[in-house]
Amino acid sequence: MTAVTIQCCAPITRDPLTEEEAAHLAGLLKAVADPVRLRLLSMIGSHEGGEACVCDLTDAFDLTAPTISHHLKVLRTAGLIDGERRGTWVYYRVIPETVARLGAIFTPLADAAPA
Amino acid sequence: MTAVTIQCCAPITRDPLTEEEAAHLAGLLKAVADPVRLRLLSMIGSHEGGEACVCDLTDAFDLTAPTISHHLKVLRTAGLIDGERRGTWVYYRVIPETVARLGAIFTPLADAAPA
Repeated sequence: MTAVTIQCCAPITRDPLTEEEAAHLAGLLKAVADPVRLRLLSMIGSHEGGEACVCDLTDAFDLTAPTISHHLKVLRTAGLIDGERRGTWVYYRVIPETVARLGAIFTPLADAAPA
Repeated sequence: MTAVTIQCCAPITRDPLTEEEAAHLAGLLKAVADPVRLRLLSMIGSHEGGEACVCDLTDAFDLTAPTISHHLKVLRTAGLIDGERRGTWVYYRVIPETVARLGAIFTPLADAAPA
């Protein structure tokens, strides 16, 4: 994934994406293109102190703990969140660089930084 | 879709998304979370004059014309591109508002406009 990271943050409407860049971005977008994962990401990012315990997250969903864990793992594997075990619980935070990368690729050209 | 448009452009890490907002955004993200559709969007948006004929797009892919048409239809249904027939060909343009909406939801809080 490192090889394409350099080009990752240009708006996708500036230059045609290469196949490799498109495959990388599609993987990242697939990780967020799910209503449960979007809500988890949103809940973690907006939680007081910027982090949320898995115990703060499960009550909002009519889903089993293993299902929530699966969705958290997808977000974590994609580099969108990180987790740290402290005592009984794992605490999650959003990785702002990855979220910002997604934002940057959809930034209109007029707002984008010069190449 | 109109009902959730008002809330669409807040960064997802500012407030927890509602189920309805998350479902709407997931649909939009699914439309772009595909390497071929990302490349098509990128090729159309970066093409001279901001529009591309379907005849400009097919050669870059080792895919049949109906497959390319299917992907263009998904982008069009999601409101990411628009198409206009002129003579033999359909010419596509990116709809900047929809792309900007995707950018806005992933904008880090520090860069986001106040509520």
